Parts: sequence; C-alpha cells; structure tokens
Amino acid sequence: MEVNIGVIGYGYWGPNLVRNFSETAGFQVVAISDLDEQRLSVAKTRYPAIEVTTDFKTLLSDPNIDTVAIATPVSTHFDLALNALKAGKHVFIEKPLTETAEQAEQLIAEAEKRNLVLHVDHTFIYTGAVRKIRELVDKGDLGELYYYDSVRVNLGLFQSDVSVLWDLAVHDLSIMDYIFPLAPTAVSATGSSHVEGRPANIAFLSLFFENNAIAHLHVNWLAPVKVRRTLIGGSRKMVVYDDLEPSEKIKIYDKGITLNGNKEKLYKALIDYRAGDMWAPRLEISEALRVEAQQFMRCIVEGEKSPSDGKAGMRVVRILEAATRSLNERGQPVELN
Amino acid sequence: MEVNIGVIGYGYWGPNLVRNFSETAGFQVVAISDLDEQRLSVAKTRYPAIEVTTDFKTLLSDPNIDTVAIATPVSTHFDLALNALKAGKHVFIEKPLTETAEQAEQLIAEAEKRNLVLHVDHTFIYTGAVRKIRELVDKGDLGELYYYDSVRVNLGLFQSDVSVLWDLAVHDLSIMDYIFPLAPTAVSATGSSHVEGRPANIAFLSLFFENNAIAHLHVNWLAPVKVRRTLIGGSRKMVVYDDLEPSEKIKIYDKGITLNGNKEKLYKALIDYRAGDMWAPRLEISEALRVEAQQFMRCIVEGEKSPSDGKAGMRVVRILEAATRSLNERGQPVELN
Amino acid sequence: MEVNIGVIGYGYWGPNLVRNFSETAGFQVVAISDLDEQRLSVAKTRYPAIEVTTDFKTLLSDPNIDTVAIATPVSTHFDLALNALKAGKHVFIEKPLTETAEQAEQLIAEAEKRNLVLHVDHTFIYTGAVRKIRELVDKGDLGELYYYDSVRVNLGLFQSDVSVLWDLAVHDLSIMDYIFPLAPTAVSATGSSHVEGRPANIAFLSLFFENNAIAHLHVNWLAPVKVRRTLIGGSRKMVVYDDLEPSEKIKIYDKGITLNGNKEKLYKALIDYRAGDMWAPRLEISEALRVEAQQFMRCIVEGEKSPSDGKAGMRVVRILEAATRSLNERGQPVELN
Amino acid sequence: MEVNIGVIGYGYWGPNLVRNFSETAGFQVVAISDLDEQRLSVAKTRYPAIEVTTDFKTLLSDPNIDTVAIATPVSTHFDLALNALKAGKHVFIEKPLTETAEQAEQLIAEAEKRNLVLHVDHTFIYTGAVRKIRELVDKGDLGELYYYDSVRVNLGLFQSDVSVLWDLAVHDLSIMDYIFPLAPTAVSATGSSHVEGRPANIAFLSLFFENNAIAHLHVNWLAPVKVRRTLIGGSRKMVVYDDLEPSEKIKIYDKGITLNGNKEKLYKALIDYRAGDMWAPRLEISEALRVEAQQFMRCIVEGEKSPSDGKAGMRVVRILEAATRSLNERGQPVELN
Repeated sequence: MEVNIGVIGYGYWGPNLVRNFSETAGFQVVAISDLDEQRLSVAKTRYPAIEVTTDFKTLLSDPNIDTVAIATPVSTHFDLALNALKAGKHVFIEKPLTETAEQAEQLIAEAEKRNLVLHVDHTFIYTGAVRKIRELVDKGDLGELYYYDSVRVNLGLFQSDVSVLWDLAVHDLSIMDYIFPLAPTAVSATGSSHVEGRPANIAFLSLFFENNAIAHLHVNWLAPVKVRRTLIGGSRKMVVYDDLEPSEKIKIYDKGITLNGNKEKLYKALIDYRAGDMWAPRLEISEALRVEAQQFMRCIVEGEKSPSDGKAGMRVVRILEAATRSLNERGQPVELN
Repeated sequence: MEVNIGVIGYGYWGPNLVRNFSETAGFQVVAISDLDEQRLSVAKTRYPAIEVTTDFKTLLSDPNIDTVAIATPVSTHFDLALNALKAGKHVFIEKPLTETAEQAEQLIAEAEKRNLVLHVDHTFIYTGAVRKIRELVDKGDLGELYYYDSVRVNLGLFQSDVSVLWDLAVHDLSIMDYIFPLAPTAVSATGSSHVEGRPANIAFLSLFFENNAIAHLHVNWLAPVKVRRTLIGGSRKMVVYDDLEPSEKIKIYDKGITLNGNKEKLYKALIDYRAGDMWAPRLEISEALRVEAQQFMRCIVEGEKSPSDGKAGMRVVRILEAATRSLNERGQPVELN
Repeated sequence: MEVNIGVIGYGYWGPNLVRNFSETAGFQVVAISDLDEQRLSVAKTRYPAIEVTTDFKTLLSDPNIDTVAIATPVSTHFDLALNALKAGKHVFIEKPLTETAEQAEQLIAEAEKRNLVLHVDHTFIYTGAVRKIRELVDKGDLGELYYYDSVRVNLGLFQSDVSVLWDLAVHDLSIMDYIFPLAPTAVSATGSSHVEGRPANIAFLSLFFENNAIAHLHVNWLAPVKVRRTLIGGSRKMVVYDDLEPSEKIKIYDKGITLNGNKEKLYKALIDYRAGDMWAPRLEISEALRVEAQQFMRCIVEGEKSPSDGKAGMRVVRILEAATRSLNERGQPVELN
Repeated sequence: MEVNIGVIGYGYWGPNLVRNFSETAGFQVVAISDLDEQRLSVAKTRYPAIEVTTDFKTLLSDPNIDTVAIATPVSTHFDLALNALKAGKHVFIEKPLTETAEQAEQLIAEAEKRNLVLHVDHTFIYTGAVRKIRELVDKGDLGELYYYDSVRVNLGLFQSDVSVLWDLAVHDLSIMDYIFPLAPTAVSATGSSHVEGRPANIAFLSLFFENNAIAHLHVNWLAPVKVRRTLIGGSRKMVVYDDLEPSEKIKIYDKGITLNGNKEKLYKALIDYRAGDMWAPRLEISEALRVEAQQFMRCIVEGEKSPSDGKAGMRVVRILEAATRSLNERGQPVELN
C-alpha cells in the first residue's frame, strides 16, 4: 500500500520531513504547501515531481492525499490539524501538539471519532539513545528512579510567540513521557525574559512525582555554549545522556549509595558509596525521523498504537501550560492531574 | 606583629586552615582542639610544636591566643563563635556562618561591640577565577547582568544535619554575594530526599532580582559525575566558569544578541545574534586559602574590611533559610528582606 | 561568463563537488560520469537536468564543457588529468594529485603549455581555521616556527591501493605547504600494516626543516577514537587546532619559554616559562569547498594563481613518495633535494 | 622486621619517597641527604625525627641503614648506586636507571653478587590503570597486539643534562616493558632542540616488534597543553588510556576490523568494521608509590622478584641509548641487541 502525504510548512523542519518521508518505503510525498513562495521554489528545485502551493486547503481537499504532516508555528497547529482530520486525513504534527490541553483533547476526540491516526513528532523518543534508556528503565537496570535532570541550553533562535519552555523543554517532557513509568503530580517553574515584552528566554522547571522522584529541566536561549546533557539517577545505576557526544551518548555508571541497616550507628556510617564500572552501550544510529516515519506507517497501515500519539502530546502540553502559569507566579507550584 | 591563632576542629577542613595559617607571615598557630583524640594525634605528628586539646575552652581562656578559627559542624557555629567573641578573640569561621540569620545578627553585633574581626570562610571569593569575574563585572565588560546559572553536582558526602543547599549552594551564594551588584528579592527552591528521614540531597534554587536578572543553583549529592560549571550571561559578554578545568577556568565569550530598533519589522528581524572571539584570561594561581589568610591578617592588623565579613555571611544564611522554607513548599516563592 | 563543468567520479566525494559547483555562481554542472550505473542513477534523481554517462570520454570530447573535476582513485588521476588537459579542459582534481612527482611534473607542463588551470583539491586550506593560522604565521604572531605536530586518527576506510600516508597525511602536508614559509629538507617515516599484503594502516612521518623546525604527522586507520588535533609551536605563541571542536577550532596560547641572557647562571635559571591568556578567534564558517570553488572560478576567469595549483600538488606528492621509501626502510631518512 | 631506609636527594621527587616510605608498614626513614642545605631544612621541619646531612656517604657508612633510595639526577645514578651496593645496601633508584646499558649491567651484576635488591622506580607500572591494562593483555582480551601509541606532552621542565626522551619517553618505555609480551627489535627516533646547545626538547620514537606490532612515543616539553594519552590497538579490542581523566582513565572499545575469508571479492568487501560497546573498568585508586613501596618491601623481606628490577631498568636504558643515536641520525633505524 502506498500512502500519499502532503506536507504543510517548508520552513526549518519541513525539509527534514519531506526528505524522510520521500525515502521511507510506503510513503509518497505528493504536495507541499507554504505561505512563502521562496521556500516553495527551494522545494521545487530539489523535488521537481512534487506539487507546491501557497494554499494548504489544496492539500486538504485533494482526495488523493491520505495524510498530512504539519510543520508550522504552534499557534496554527490546532486549526490546521482539526481541518485535516475533518477532511479525513491522518495527521503527523510537530511538537508541541497545541497551545492548550483543551485543544489537544478536541483533536484526540476528532481523530478517534474518525478512526484516524494522530501522531505527534516527539522526535527524540525515536533516537537510539532514548530507546536504550527506556530499555534500561523497563528492565529495571537503574532500580527505583530518583531523578531526571536535564540541561538544554544554547545561543538559540528566539521565538516570537512562545517561551523557551515550549521550544526546548518540550523535548525533555516528551522524553520523560516516554521513559518514566510515573506521571508528575505538580510543577514549579521559574524564568525570565531579557527582551522587553517577550516570553521567557531562560527557564527552570521542576516536576514532582510520587515516591520522592523529581525532575528538573534547565533551558536557555541565551547561553554562550551549547549543552545537551541529562543525568538520570536510580537506586541501582545512574545514566549520563549527552546528546552532543558523537558516539558515546549514553554512559551508565555503576555508582550510587547503599544504606546499611544499622540505624543505631552514626548517620555517616549508614551510607556507603559505591563506585564501579562505567559502560557505554553501542546505540542504533538510524536517523530518528526515519524510524519515526516507519512507526507512523505502521500506525496507518497496521493500526499500531503510536508511542507519541495525541494523548502523549496532550500530556506534554498540559505540563507546559501549568509550567507557564507557575513561571508567571515565580515558582508557585501548580498541581497536575 | 605576631597573631596567635587557635584552631577549633581538625576534621576535613581544619588541616587546611592549620597548614595555611602556619605558612602565612604574621600568624602563629599555637593550639588545636578537636573532640576526637585520633585527629589530635594526627595533628601532633605533623606539628609537634602546636598544643592540642579536646577542650576548646582551653583555647578561649588562653590570653596568649588572639584569634580562633572554627571548622566544626554548622550546628555548633553560633555557640563557639559567640563564646570566642565574648572571650575577646577575633573569629575566622567556616561557612555557612550560622543556622539562622538571627544568630548571624547576634554575632555581628557582638563583634562590633567589641571591635573584633568576624570573618566567614567564603573560600571561593579568594580564588583567581572569582576575583577575575568580579573584575569583569566591575569594569562593566559583561554589560547588564542577565543571569547566573550554576551546576554543582557530584557523588558527595551526604551530611546528616543539613541539606545539600547548606553544603553546596552556599558556595554559589557566597560567590554571587561577592560579584553581583544587586541583592535578590525573592527565592524559589525545589528538591528531594532519597534517604528516608534525611534532608534534601538534590535541590534547585532560583533567585529573583530587579531588572529581570535571575540566578539558578543546581546542587546534587547523588550525581554520577562531578560538575562545577557556571554560566553568567550579560548584555555584552557571557562567561563560562568551569572550576574543574585545570587552567582555563574562565572563558569569556563575545556572544549574545543585539536588538535593532525597527519595531515595525517582524520579530525575528529584531534580534541579531552575535558570535565573536572567546578569551581565557590568565588567572592568579595562588591557593585561595592563602590569599584569604592574608586578607584576614589585614583585617586584624590594619582594620581593613573583610569582603566576607559577618554581614556577607548573614546575607547568605538568610537566603538559605528562605530557600529551605520554599523547598518544603515545593517552590512557593519566599520574599527576602 | 558561465563555466560549464563535467564531474568524473560520483563516489564518496563527487557528490560534494557537484553540490558545491551547482551552487557557486558562474559554474554550471552539465555532465557526470561514473563507471557505476547505480551511482549515476542516484545523481540523476537528485539532478534531473544533468547528463550522466559511464564513459568519461564523452565529457572530454564535449566542446560545450570547459572544465572537468576529477574525483576518482589516485591511480587514475594521471591519465584522466592528462587527457582532460590535452582535450583543452581546465582541471580540478582530488588530492593527492598523482602517484609520482614525475607524473605531477608532466601535468604541470601540459597545463602551462596550454594555458589551462590545474587546481588540486587541497580542501583544508580553504577552511576558516587554516586560513586563520596562515594569517597568524604571516603576521609573525607566532614568532619563529618551532614545530607542526598533527594527530589524525580514526577507525577509517581502509583503502586498497594506497597507504594511510596517501589518504590521511596528505591533508597535513597540504596544510603545511600552505602555512609554512619553509620547505622540508628530508623526511623519515615509520609505520606498519596489520592486514596481510596491504599497505601501512598506521604511520608516523617526521619532516626536517632548516633552523631546527620539525614537523610530525601521526596517522592511523585503526584507532578506537577519532582525533584531529594539531599543535603548532612558535617562539612567541602556540596554537592548538582541533578540527573536531564545533566552534573553537583554533586556540592561541600566549605560552612558551624565554631565554634570559645570563649564560653564567645555572641552566635552569636560563629558561623562564611564560603562561598568559588563551584566545580563540571567531572563524569564517563558510563551507571550504564553496570558498575553493570560488577561488577556482577566479583562476579560470581572472587568471588568479591558485594556492593549491599543480606545483603545490607536486610538492605534496614528492614528500609522500619519499616518506613511502623511508617507511619501507624503517625510518631511514630520505633527502628532499 | 623493620627496614631502615636512607633517602639520597630531596629535590622534586625525594619528598614523595620520604612520605610514602614513612607511611608504609615496615619501613623507617632514618636519614636524608641532599647537597642543598635549604632542602634539608624543609625536610627537618616536616620530619624532626629524621637525620639530615649534606654528605650521602654518611648514609652509606651507617650500619643501621639497610636500604637507600636514590632520587638524584641521572648522571649521578651509577656512582651512587654502585657505592650503595658495595656498602651492602638494597637500592631503590629513580628512572632511568643509568646513563648507559653497560652501567646498568654492572649494577645488576653487583646486586646479584651481593644478593641485594636493585629496584628501579618505574612508578607508572604500579598504578591501577597500567596494572589493569596488563591484566587485559595477559587474559588475551585485546587479542594480538597491533600498536602502542602514546602522546606525552606539556610545557615542561627543560632539563639541562638529558633530552626529553630520557625524561618523558622513559615513562612509556617502562610501561611497555611491563605490559608488552614482546621485546622491540629496532628503534627509529627523530626530534629537535629549540634552545641552542641543548638536547632535544621534542622527540618522536618508533619501536619495531616482530609480527608487525609497532610502538610510537611522542614527547614534547614545549607544548601549550598537557596531554597524556595512549592508544593500544589489538585484534580484538582497543584501549584508550588517558591519565588526565580524573576517574575513567581506561576505556576499552569493542571496535576494530574483521577480515572475511573470501579473497576473491574486492578488497573493501574483505574488511568489516566492528563498533560495539565501550567499557571503563573501575580502577584501584591506591597511590602508585605506596603500592610500589610495599612491593619493594616484599622484595627485601620475602625475596620476591621486582617487576621493575635492574634488568627492566636496563632494557629501558638500552632503548633510550639506541633512540638517542637514531635521533642524531634523523631517524636512521638502530637495531636492539
């Protein structure tokens, strides 16, 4: 079966979608829409056989198109996706799914009603690194999860409509949604803007879980260096995930503390430090978007459930909404549930 | 003039004090007290000429001793320091100064009344690296300060009586007290404990300032790797301070954004990214404690004001108190002053 | 003026040539030849307008083609380039230029006789990093050059016909040819092969210069990690050039020794160590091949002399020939006339 | 049994010997000699109970001293060690053992004749890292050894009497002597001096072995950065040993090539690349000199053979002698034995 796909938005990320869908067996990219004629002319030069248009409605009304991929600013996601679903198209959509959890719920309902696939492009969960971490968590290798602690900073593209939380923290929230067995119960966020009248360009977000697990995300568009490093602490092992490492992105440390039982003894005697080997497993090196396109294909053709379906997208948006509220109240905790 | 000094506490840090005071012109270490006979015997072997005792009162009542240095657990600081001041001794004391800001105020008052020096061992502000940052800030090289963002984590010595904030964040608070021209207005902190019944071993602390400046401290006793890295963002330049770098601890980036005036244009056009040279200045490599001992000497003999006097110590304790309250309320912001 | 170019060889490097010539003003890629039909079909999909053929002679006999770019194995270079020059085409050719210096001389003579451009693709000298080093040397910032010391190792593509010297050391030789004001006088090389019957996969090459300057190249196809690091020592400053650094590829150290004049004193007193600032200049980030294509264009149209002309190519080949002889004699030095 | 030891030379390294012998059960440091009164006064302050003298003969003639440790310039080694052995003392001596292999042979003969221990301070072979590498080699984990490739450079202490080979390469030669099952058959070395009239401050040394194994040492006193990195390639696994890494000094890569048997196929098909996990084993963190002092004790008391006995010392000196000859002939290979 051939799935004909139309791509809406050919800006920063759209070209990656076109390239990957073009090279994934089963997909045929048949049309691209973008408001900018110049972008369309770039697309036409590279892919002479693909139709281009400035009017996305052309794609929605084309009965030959089964599926649309949406790579436009988040403020347009809800309308575009709703219209696409109503036109009977499966939807592959950039993260974050929508601007509000309520919008996300509407899209989920619409997709379910029509039996269409709604897949959010949580790209990172399709990388070899994150899939390896999920495998370690699932097998219990890390033990009880204590914390997830990420730093994701760079001198970045300031966005006009959303804060750095919606641009960078969304990556970690989608990763955590995938690897963590627990859902967070509350969030506290702080941050600041250094460009007058604009949303925060630096932000810090804490997520509370049951069992004293805690997560912390650290995002910044105004950093002099690029950092992409996550520490994951467990009772048995700890992980350093550095996405900028060329090959050893995941390092697993057999380090930690053990508590000995003798509560009568002095406190310090109760804690033993453990330092063992470090191990960097070989990772799958397929491009994440390729793996994801194949997953999306299986969702459409075989009815498989997507690991980043509308509900995953909604859970992430719900946290972003709550975090934004908390940030405006200088860290005041906001309950999730 | 010779200043005779007695050192109370010969555990982890005390030996560094004894060594540095011994080798600083003007100081004569004449006595050491510790509750642990074994520690005293270690001291005696290394320094046969120094008196040792398990009773700190011997030091306080010795008219030959002008000054005491206190390197004991924080819970004992207030009593020891107060007694020392009442006995007419100058005091050099480990950080944090006390358990509460109120105690700190009492010590400050007592020292002022008696015209004695009260100096808190904020060691880091006597390093070449931090003094260089202070110099950059003072000269205006960084421009307006946007943020101070520190990560200070390792597999550390869990302490029984205080949380990781009082053990690790105290370093950054003392550095910020020294280099930042502004005082924070409020604090929000989160954290968690992974050893039942113990204070937090992982914590995150945001400090709010006027003019949208923000600071964030990131401390963890249960990390698989050691990190000591601070980013300081300014409107003109940005600094990376990595204390684990053997020689280039300070890197100054001529990077940032500039806003052009044309507000009519689209947002993205308003922000220009600037990427210039990076520069790592040569740093003074004297041991911080040596520089600090010399500073302490000048305070005693010449009446110079200490950059880490009782008031600096109190400001740091006040933030730690507020942060502890906020942490217990999952990030609820707490006003300072 | 439009220069029509035909590309011979569409394997590993050919696609980069086609892409860059396509996007450089003035060039028009009109034809591609390769012995492998599959490679041609890849080319045809990406560039439907370009003619493809398995017979390179079609390109040479096409009067519409002014110029050929040759990206084939080194053993074919001489014949292809000679035929291209005889057919009146300018030649852009991969490094190393030829298998022997004698062949290189023939090509140079042929190009000169016909007034054609012969340009060798010494790509690295068109990078921002190497051009910056050349600038530092030219301005005398480094002082007298003491050494050039490069490590270039990885788990690499073993080549069947040439040793690792011809594959990896050629990069450093072309860089040195560009930045060093001196020509080497002799070479000593060692190395070994770990695959029976194959040329050396690990090799070490020393070059001797007048004034005690020395160069050393360190190449290896069988290393567990990738390293691309060069130290350049001068009497005034020293450079670390790390090509794997994402942005600070060049670091300039104000470090070194100074000799004080008092020869009567003990030796150690004669040498003072100097440790000053480090500085990483901002580098041009244009793609090297693009810069090079523009240079090649200026050679053709404006008669500019190429920094990597046939003579530069010949000097590099002469050293590789001598090094190969030396390697076979376990380091026996070989004079370079 | 108590072994009384006298230490000759209290300059750069002597204090480490005194401290470690003092703290190793069984040894009693009873005397220190040095030509420099100031050094002796430093020693006396730290160790009031130890006798000090400017005349080493006092130590040799003292019947109460069983053993001497010699930490003086290499040019004095032979005379001091010979006299000590003739006086009936066991000898612990800094590397390199002597200036010539012939001298080394005389010392070995003298020690054997008198049944005394002659132990050379090849410190590195007593580190956790090198002992782990030896263990990997012994168990066959690395497979057949292909190469040992070390870079050891820094802005160093220029020495007046010996070249950088005798100062830095000696470390690698002693490591190789310990871990390599094979003895080298020939050596080629190159290098240069940048201080008029002084021995080489930069040098490169290749060692040839049977079976195409090769070693290469890379030493430099005039480098802007400090590097201590060794790659060891084997047919099954490869090791990166970075002595500047704070904890993961040894990384073992399951990487390499495999040859498939079909010699009819094209060359490239014959070589498969293998990329697997990386593993950093936990290392013993005892101070090397402490481990070595204990080893020396067992040699004296239990008659155990030292892994760095006079013969090991002599093998290293023999290579250094040959390398020096080769360096003076610009890489001309010199046979060993």
